[in-house]
Amino acid sequence: MGHDLQRTVSILARTPAALDALLRDLPDEWASRNEGENTWSAFDVVGHLIHGERTDWIPRAKMVLQFGETRTFEPFDRWGQVRESQGKSLEQLLDEFARLRSGNLTELRALNLRQEDLERRGRHPALGVVTLSELLATWAAHDLTHLHQLSRVMAHPYREAVGPWSRYLGVLQCAGHSAAS
Amino acid sequence: MGHDLQRTVSILARTPAALDALLRDLPDEWASRNEGENTWSAFDVVGHLIHGERTDWIPRAKMVLQFGETRTFEPFDRWGQVRESQGKSLEQLLDEFARLRSGNLTELRALNLRQEDLERRGRHPALGVVTLSELLATWAAHDLTHLHQLSRVMAHPYREAVGPWSRYLGVLQCAGHSAAS
Repeated sequence: MGHDLQRTVSILARTPAALDALLRDLPDEWASRNEGENTWSAFDVVGHLIHGERTDWIPRAKMVLQFGETRTFEPFDRWGQVRESQGKSLEQLLDEFARLRSGNLTELRALNLRQEDLERRGRHPALGVVTLSELLATWAAHDLTHLHQLSRVMAHPYREAVGPWSRYLGVLQCAGHSAAS
Repeated sequence: MGHDLQRTVSILARTPAALDALLRDLPDEWASRNEGENTWSAFDVVGHLIHGERTDWIPRAKMVLQFGETRTFEPFDRWGQVRESQGKSLEQLLDEFARLRSGNLTELRALNLRQEDLERRGRHPALGVVTLSELLATWAAHDLTHLHQLSRVMAHPYREAVGPWSRYLGVLQCAGHSAAS
């Protein structure tokens, strides 16, 4: 299944500025508000995206190119950001995410991927064989999943405040759709 | 049901820049891509938000303050943007939305609303009696609903490209939750 790498890079490049517009200088109490036990706040979401930049996308892409299916990706730690984010401000996390993302896109471009590279296969610890194309498409769709989640987290305090309009507001009906929300 | 008007204004002020970061200079074919028949593209969503700035939020707020429950709001036309957006570029719509939103927030601040104003009641053509507080909370939650929708519209082309990762990506499982998506 091919995908449009140019679109993927364009989405990946847009996410830091979009998060910045939504989140920078939010009062702490809003940034740390989640949807209940075992759910994430805006602060957690940005930390999670940072953790992905460090440990997931580019490291896995390089593993595919170097080792193919012979080496299994490290499992991704969905709570890996907790320790890394501790003591930081949301603004620090936004800056860090933007810097890491920019560096990773530079690395991605430097790989100079051709169509046959995108078809190369790696091994995911739970999903089995995956292609480099699928990995890179997932990178972009993962950003969008967390934007989807973030809009819901930010809307959460409005559940009652909107009164009878609630039924018209899809984001208030959303209960998440997956482990990654 | 009270709500935090400062939070609402802060969200309303952020949306234009967030949409700009996500959408400006997208290729036309991406901006006009929707999720199938009778669904909206990114272009349609921005047009819809413009239509709301012109005909919904501030005009209704003024009606509540002026007429209370004695006059029913004009019904909102969910396809009202189609004619208004025709022939415009996505960049023109983004500029127009930012300009209208900024003007409306200036108007909102000039209303100098006190707690007792927020409790004033108006009449919605389908929902019946609503408060000014609920109307303003809905304005912000409506932005977030369309951000939620937009992340899904942008992810739509990735449904197959992500291969087996699909099950981890909530945004790809979302089928919308309401008429307003």
